[in-house]
Order: sequence, then structure tokens, then C-alpha cells
Amino acid sequence: MTAPTQEMKQTQKKKKIALSGIKPTGTPHVGNYLGMIKPALELVKDYQTLYFIADYHGLTTIRDKREMKQHTYEVAATFLALGLNPDEVIFYRQSDIPEVFELTWVLSCFTGKGWLNRAHAYKGAVDANTAAGHDTDDGINAGLFNYPVLMAADIILFNADVVPVGQDQRQHLEMTRDIANAFNYVYGDTLVPPEALIREEVAIITGLDGRKMSKSYGNTIELFAASKQLRKQVMRIVTDSRTPEEPKNPDENNIFNIYKHFATPAMIAENRKKYTEGGVGYGDLKQELFELLDETFTEPRERYNELMANRKEIDAILNQGAEKAHRIARKTLSKVRRRIGID
Amino acid sequence: MTAPTQEMKQTQKKKKIALSGIKPTGTPHVGNYLGMIKPALELVKDYQTLYFIADYHGLTTIRDKREMKQHTYEVAATFLALGLNPDEVIFYRQSDIPEVFELTWVLSCFTGKGWLNRAHAYKGAVDANTAAGHDTDDGINAGLFNYPVLMAADIILFNADVVPVGQDQRQHLEMTRDIANAFNYVYGDTLVPPEALIREEVAIITGLDGRKMSKSYGNTIELFAASKQLRKQVMRIVTDSRTPEEPKNPDENNIFNIYKHFATPAMIAENRKKYTEGGVGYGDLKQELFELLDETFTEPRERYNELMANRKEIDAILNQGAEKAHRIARKTLSKVRRRIGID
Repeated sequence: MTAPTQEMKQTQKKKKIALSGIKPTGTPHVGNYLGMIKPALELVKDYQTLYFIADYHGLTTIRDKREMKQHTYEVAATFLALGLNPDEVIFYRQSDIPEVFELTWVLSCFTGKGWLNRAHAYKGAVDANTAAGHDTDDGINAGLFNYPVLMAADIILFNADVVPVGQDQRQHLEMTRDIANAFNYVYGDTLVPPEALIREEVAIITGLDGRKMSKSYGNTIELFAASKQLRKQVMRIVTDSRTPEEPKNPDENNIFNIYKHFATPAMIAENRKKYTEGGVGYGDLKQELFELLDETFTEPRERYNELMANRKEIDAILNQGAEKAHRIARKTLSKVRRRIGID
Repeated sequence: MTAPTQEMKQTQKKKKIALSGIKPTGTPHVGNYLGMIKPALELVKDYQTLYFIADYHGLTTIRDKREMKQHTYEVAATFLALGLNPDEVIFYRQSDIPEVFELTWVLSCFTGKGWLNRAHAYKGAVDANTAAGHDTDDGINAGLFNYPVLMAADIILFNADVVPVGQDQRQHLEMTRDIANAFNYVYGDTLVPPEALIREEVAIITGLDGRKMSKSYGNTIELFAASKQLRKQVMRIVTDSRTPEEPKNPDENNIFNIYKHFATPAMIAENRKKYTEGGVGYGDLKQELFELLDETFTEPRERYNELMANRKEIDAILNQGAEKAHRIARKTLSKVRRRIGID
């Protein structure tokens, strides 16, 4: 047996690859941040990471070019403002990588049509149609139906080992594995079947009214709202009518439910005590939450606004990411083409 | 009113664009030639034409890289040997134009999933499954299901005005129109909805045994078989047992049914008379047919063999075609991207 060479040691130390797609969905709120952005940014510690803006996924629903552009820039600026370091991760637009779409076609030839029939996103749309008494496929476009194949190409093209997903995406990721395996079965080991990295269930982030924070409920706290705006939003958090003197249950309190995600354990413990014992009012906690959010997001907000005012800077960063992504994409696609005899 | 400028006159004279896709299906026979190749090559007179080898369509069924390569070269060599002039038409491989696949994704977002459910090719596969008592989508891959969208992208990318198709493809072409119109409805006039150029019903070309000439029946006359081989195939044509003296009906005769597509009207009239009156045997007509085919295809056969022995020449021709095709493809895709806000 020979001693491991330097190169072998480096390979052994090589981090696994994680890949994360982000849909362009406009102005981010605290719910997005805690549920998706923060955990995504934390991957950098353990993985070699790629993030991409899934603009072409957005095309299944977005039908306005200004909206498409605006949302793409917003989501890019959000991640950059919150600490994504483009020298450390590969950050690119899906639409800058034409290999994604060629691979999508290849993979579609190894995707059982029956698998797509059973995909959650599609079945959800079908169920909604059935419930409304419409035709099964009413208003459903082929992009929505084929979305799991594009997702598979996004992942497989970059040899991703793991993909962080919520429980709702677990099945789509299983399909990616099945597709990679179906190709490998015919042509021999070529594609990497990825593993799901199921996100720890972040407790649901409640909005101003206590329901899940969501743009569609109009109950959000915007991440990059100006201080004055931010204060207004926080002050609108719905509370019950207990007086300052009465003891309150912090776990059934909309303010506290947001507060606890940003405060230090010491701050949380102190406030938990104060509220359980009674003696402080909701207004105080609101003020404290506002100050905490304002402090947490002051710098990112400035950076966000700076980037949104200078889109060329965003373009330059994404173009640089696209170049790096391209190099990997070309390699994978060449390998695939050689295997199928199209080269 | 000003007089028309030189440029305007040129525009007025500009020919319409016709586009034709060819599946890589291996050694061509007389049936392929008369039914598809010959009419396709005749388009050059009236149209500005593009021909492409639809290798990525082939991937829905071909699962062997050698077969894929071999068939692709065979089909390219066939068209070139039979007179396709690469300086006059744009001749390229589908797989050399990555824009096709990106546009496929875009168009899929404007394709009703329900339209694809009703596509003939897919329904045919479903019917076969149902008849065999299998699950509806058994063995059907998403490539087959999405084939009309790829076909639409093939056509729309090159602004084709007309597409020559058989009756069986009419519906798929209608879908291409629907997809182009659906996009235009949202984003304004952008894509050209093509017209079908329905091929005049070439009488079915009968094979050696009188059934339709088809590789699956093993009743073909190969286009580029060596003389000796060709003679053997022609001699195998099935006839009835009438003696030379008996009168024969030329229209119910397997030899005559092939002969009439290659002979001059004078030759046809002469033989028709001879056979109707009686006095000649089938062997004579077989010999005459053999000589006619041998003469017709001697030069193409030599050119075919030359090309197949020198694949680099085929590559060079297809690469040159791909460059020309690329220029058009890039323009269309850029226009589409600007419209949807991905640019």
C-alpha cells in the first residue's frame, strides 16, 4: 500500500456540494428570511455551495417582463445584502446557463411520464381544478407539469450532493434521484443522484395577525423597510387587550413569536420572565422588537438599497457567477453527450 | 409616393422559409426516398430552406450511442448524396443549436398541458397500452409526451413560414401555431405561427411483398445497396404465377408499382401496353427496374459511400450549417428573452 498523495488528501478533504434555487418572488419579508434565506446562507460553513435565481421557473407564472426583472434583481440584492459572498459561493442566474435546458430535454427522455402525473405541485393544481369543478388540466401549462424535470437538470448539471429542501419538496427531489438513476442504468455511472437535506422544521413564522407570515395575507414585516416604515409595521402586530400589569403567556404572543428569532437567549429569558410575571405592556415589547429588527437589518438595508440603485453591480456579480457555473455545466453536459452518442 | 428602393424590391422578392426535420433512422430505402427525401429536396426551388437532423428527438427511443451516431451520419450522408446543396440550404444537427432547448422551456410555459394529452403520437402510445391492458402511461417517457413542444421550438426558432408534413403531423403543427399564438397573445407579435404544407399524398410505396415498404416488414429495397445486392432485392419482389403470355394488370403488380416512380412517362406507357396485352414476363420488368434503380442511384451511392468513409467531411458540412442556423437562432431567442424580461 502506498501512502496517500497530497492530491488524495485534498480530495478527501473536499467539501460536498450543496445547491439551492431561489424563485424570484419580490420584496422579501421576515418570514422568508427566517424560513429560507438564513438557513441557506448558513450552508456555506459545511458545503461548497451554489445558489441560483430560478428565473425560468418563475416563467410558469410570471407574465410581465418588468415584474420578472424587478423580482430577479430584488432576490439577488437580498442575498447579497444579507451576506452572500460571491467569492465564496457560486451565485448565478439559471437563465445564464443554457446547458440547463439541453439537459432538461435529455432527462425528460429518462423521466417516466407517470412520475410527473404524481408530482405534488402538479397534483395540487389538479386537485384545485377538481374542487372547483373545472377540467383536470384547466389552466395548467406544460411548464408547471415538467417543473420536476427542470429542477432535476438544475441539480444534476452541477453534480450536487445535497439539496436543502422543505418537506414539500422532498418528493420532487426523490424524482431527481430516480431520473439520475434511470440515466445511469442505461449508460453506466454518469450522473450524481442527490440527497435531500431536509430543513429542520423552522417553527412557522407568524405574521402581524398571528397567521403564517405571507405576502398573500398582507401580514408581513418587510426585511428592508425604512426605519419609519418598519416601526409602523411592528406597531400593527395584533395583541390581546391585557393591561401591562396582567401576566401574559409569551408563547401565545405574536410579538414574542417574532422577537424570539432575533433576540439573544439572555434577552429572551429576561423578557419571558417579565411577561410571565406581568408588569410590562405590549407596547414596550413592540418597541424593543422594532429596535432589534432595525439594528439587525440597518446594514443589509443600506447595502440592499445601494445594490438596487446600481443594478450593473448586481449584473457583474451574477455574470461572474455564471462564468464559474458555466465551466461545471459544460463538463457535465459534455459527459452526458458522449454517453448518448451526441457529440 | 416614393419609388421602391432596391432594398424594398429585394424584400418583396424574398422567398418564404420552409423547415424540415429528419429523424435519424438508419439506412434509407426506396420508400423513404419517394415519400420524404425527394419531396423535401424539391422544396429548394420555391423556398428558402432549412433541414435539420432531429437527433434529440431520436433520444426518446434510441438508447445506444453507436446507433445514435451511425444513424445521424447515415441520414446526413443520404441527403447530401441525393443532392442537398449545403451552400443553398441550411443543413444542421438539432443538437448543435442549444437555443432550441431554451426556447422549448419558454414555450412549455405557453403550452396547455391538456393540449399535450390530446397529441396524436402520445395518444397512440396510450391506446397501445390500454389495448395491452397496461397502465395508461406505461413505458412512456416525458420526452415522448413533450415532443410537440420541442417540435414547436425547432420551427419557431427559425421563423419558418411553412413546414412540410404528412397528414399524421398536421395536428402537431396546429399545436405549434397555438403555442406561438399563446405567446404572442401575452407579449405582442413576436413569433411566427407556421403553416402546414401538407405533402400531396404520395401513393403508398409498396415493398417487395406488396405491403407498405417498411424496415419493420423487412420488405425494403435499400437506396444505396451495391448493384449485386440491389439486383437480389429487386428479384425478390413477389409476383403472381401468370405466364409471360398472359395479359397482366400493371396497377396490381408489385414491380410496376415501384417502377412507375422512376421511369419516364414514355417508358411507363410502353410497359403498361406490353403488360396489358401480354407477351412479356415479370423477369423482364424486374431486370428493367433493377437497371433503372441502379442507374438512378449509382452516383448518389458512390457519393454516399465516400461520405460515410469520411465522416469529418460530414461534420464540416454540418458545422458550417450550424453556424448559419445559430445566427438566426440567437436573434429569435434574444427577442423572446427581451419580451419575457430575461435579458
